[in-house]
Amino acid sequence: MVNIVDVLRFVYDKVIPSDDERRRVESVVSIMIERVKKASSQLNLPVKVRAEGSIAKDTWISGDRDIDIFIQLPREIGVNGLREIGLRIARIAAGDRWIERYAEHPYIETELNDFKIDLVPCFMLNDPREALSTVDRTPFHTDFINSLFNDVLRRETRVLKQFMKGIGVYGAEIKVQGFSGYLCELLILHYGSFLDLIEAAAERWRPFNVVIDIKEYHSNLNEVKSIFNAPLIVIDPVDKRRNVAAALSLEKICEFIAACRAFLKRPDVSFFFPSKLSTFTSEELVNQFRVRGTDFIFIITSCPKAVPDVLWGQLYKSLRGLRRLLYKWNFKVIGDFVWSDEEDKVVFCFELESAFLPNVERHVGPPISSKEHCDKFLVKHLVSMNLISGPKIEGDRWVVYLKRKYPNITLMLMNEWMKAKLGSLVYESLKNGFQVLLNEQIVEFYDSNDDFAYSLTKYLVGRPSWLLAN
Amino acid sequence: MVNIVDVLRFVYDKVIPSDDERRRVESVVSIMIERVKKASSQLNLPVKVRAEGSIAKDTWISGDRDIDIFIQLPREIGVNGLREIGLRIARIAAGDRWIERYAEHPYIETELNDFKIDLVPCFMLNDPREALSTVDRTPFHTDFINSLFNDVLRRETRVLKQFMKGIGVYGAEIKVQGFSGYLCELLILHYGSFLDLIEAAAERWRPFNVVIDIKEYHSNLNEVKSIFNAPLIVIDPVDKRRNVAAALSLEKICEFIAACRAFLKRPDVSFFFPSKLSTFTSEELVNQFRVRGTDFIFIITSCPKAVPDVLWGQLYKSLRGLRRLLYKWNFKVIGDFVWSDEEDKVVFCFELESAFLPNVERHVGPPISSKEHCDKFLVKHLVSMNLISGPKIEGDRWVVYLKRKYPNITLMLMNEWMKAKLGSLVYESLKNGFQVLLNEQIVEFYDSNDDFAYSLTKYLVGRPSWLLAN
Repeated sequence: MVNIVDVLRFVYDKVIPSDDERRRVESVVSIMIERVKKASSQLNLPVKVRAEGSIAKDTWISGDRDIDIFIQLPREIGVNGLREIGLRIARIAAGDRWIERYAEHPYIETELNDFKIDLVPCFMLNDPREALSTVDRTPFHTDFINSLFNDVLRRETRVLKQFMKGIGVYGAEIKVQGFSGYLCELLILHYGSFLDLIEAAAERWRPFNVVIDIKEYHSNLNEVKSIFNAPLIVIDPVDKRRNVAAALSLEKICEFIAACRAFLKRPDVSFFFPSKLSTFTSEELVNQFRVRGTDFIFIITSCPKAVPDVLWGQLYKSLRGLRRLLYKWNFKVIGDFVWSDEEDKVVFCFELESAFLPNVERHVGPPISSKEHCDKFLVKHLVSMNLISGPKIEGDRWVVYLKRKYPNITLMLMNEWMKAKLGSLVYESLKNGFQVLLNEQIVEFYDSNDDFAYSLTKYLVGRPSWLLAN
Repeated sequence: MVNIVDVLRFVYDKVIPSDDERRRVESVVSIMIERVKKASSQLNLPVKVRAEGSIAKDTWISGDRDIDIFIQLPREIGVNGLREIGLRIARIAAGDRWIERYAEHPYIETELNDFKIDLVPCFMLNDPREALSTVDRTPFHTDFINSLFNDVLRRETRVLKQFMKGIGVYGAEIKVQGFSGYLCELLILHYGSFLDLIEAAAERWRPFNVVIDIKEYHSNLNEVKSIFNAPLIVIDPVDKRRNVAAALSLEKICEFIAACRAFLKRPDVSFFFPSKLSTFTSEELVNQFRVRGTDFIFIITSCPKAVPDVLWGQLYKSLRGLRRLLYKWNFKVIGDFVWSDEEDKVVFCFELESAFLPNVERHVGPPISSKEHCDKFLVKHLVSMNLISGPKIEGDRWVVYLKRKYPNITLMLMNEWMKAKLGSLVYESLKNGFQVLLNEQIVEFYDSNDDFAYSLTKYLVGRPSWLLAN
């Protein structure tokens, strides 16, 4: 059994940037800030330029290559002005290699000395409650954290972030629905240290029952719970109407709690730095299908063009919609996932008890006591082409055995997919065509796509990496 | 469309015995009564001998060959005396061809001029409420009916009985759980005619909501319903504590109601005299299996030695017990029946969505909020030989995919049958051995056993004969 102190010491070494790394980061940051300032100097507008995010708060993990530079412009120029002027400045500052990206608002991504740099226009505000989008609030978050953090809290934040990355719950984007960097910082601020947080989560956290209100804005905790109604509620110290953990899913907080329990039971560096699962060979894959004895279907379609948050929102919604469609037609789903390379392909995967249902389907009709319904039921079924046997009485009800509309899942999907609740972009993709593959038919795609193969392997193993260490 | 009056006229002709038949019946009855009287004349006991049942009440259907002769002995000789003396008299009266049978009490079955004659000992009582068994009450029933019946009511009773035979709900024995002859007579007495009864049943009868109390013993109908709590309640005019329809099942009263509705909609002699279903050939049988796409399993064992009522009670109970066992192990039953020749073999038949289940089984564990249960769950499953994938978190719960104990139904039945709720005699039969046949494996047995073949055909058609005429 490894000592917890040894584990943490090992992690410190990995996550705290060296003086050399700091100098390199600082150098890149000041070069970029200078460039932006220069690019905006021609304008007759007050412009503030500063680093934000983990770099500005000194909570980045050693080796991170992402730097955020925010360009604050006056509120008066409006949303269109922000977009136009902000991006123009950013493009000039970026030089000849840049790409325009889009989250809630557009921003410019560029590169310098192997760092990826986001140049993000936002409004210059006096009060975070005037924020029009998340980025307007960011400078207030930076200031808040910097006003209270010391080196120990920064170190503990880095450890926590690495832990969350290791167990796969880091990142507030829709694809992950995990913990944001700012949320990590607030948790460390509240609990004082990584271990204190881990212990609290392991022992005391219950989903939908945790409220952290650092500034003590709210006095009635039950009211807060019912207003925010989220698995974890962390009131934003700079805006009491906001839950910093709003994007966190039930599943991710549960995974975090479970990992905390496991880590305290048996501390190990593998929680922070898991060894990567090795993908099954196609022979192993086929053998997995054989061992499970279930049927896998894969619905392959083209990937809609959309920013990742929009794309994954639609993919998850569509996965649920297709699952309900399968249930409706009596195919028993025992597991599923959706994969996408975010560019070319989307694959919805369902594991089923069976992809084949008997031709006949038992259908229970009205009770004898409802004479009118019985009459209708008999008239309808006695002349039906789909009647296989019955009607007969069982207990006090009429029962018929009908020809099942879809014993074949592929035919069902071909005819009924459009009745599933789908994201509109996914609907368009499916409308343009899709393939349904069964079991071993996936092998060719599996062999030609490593990332998909990894995802399917992960589904089949179906166990968090840290549970292997247990 | 056939006129209802024509239908009934046709039925009268068939069910009312001719003068010639009456003479032949009366002759057999008086010969047997004389023989019994003679056989009992040596005893120093008062003995009353008389015909009972439908012969005595003049409500038998033309062609019936069953005659009941009751031997009434004094209460003072006790149950053992009744058995000993009663049977001795009956045996002497029967001559050299008789067989001892058993219902609630033993009796002697013999033959005369092609009539089957039951010689039944019972007690001579002043009050039916002193009855120790059903037979003690019978003479009072006979007297009650004869005191009120006229030729019209007798004709209507015969029509009703034939209707019930035709639609398969006649007979209070456990195998059928239908309407007894006495119940038919009381229904006619109450409603006045066959058509009045049929109309009442079709329009107004609701299971568990019909109370017929000819003598108006009870004033509070709701109390009567809750005390007797039966699909049909007909208070015995000779014993107000007794529901004459106690043996009637929910299914049989519903079948009767449904047939009454159908008959009024489209009167036809086929309700009274259905054409017999023709049994499927074995080729047709195999084709039926193919069309339905389900799996049939047949559990064949030896027939327990017991009187029919005991046998069928046990068979039905065991059918339910086996069905629950199949459900418990996740085999989805969509229909079943039990067949027996009451002598040699018993066959339990189940139609299943599939007799084969995937190797893997999804098992949902405790929610993250129950730390202790989670710990136990993880410890248990992480070391289990049956873990195929997981544990993983879905929503707020741990989920594992385990090796299913019984993907194979035959192995399950071989290992688990004794845990089903079975009748004790059926348990012994199964303990001595049974066969499990799947689908076409039944063909050999099917071809060698016409009655079983007929029952399986009936199950597969799954429709009352009278519904064909609709």
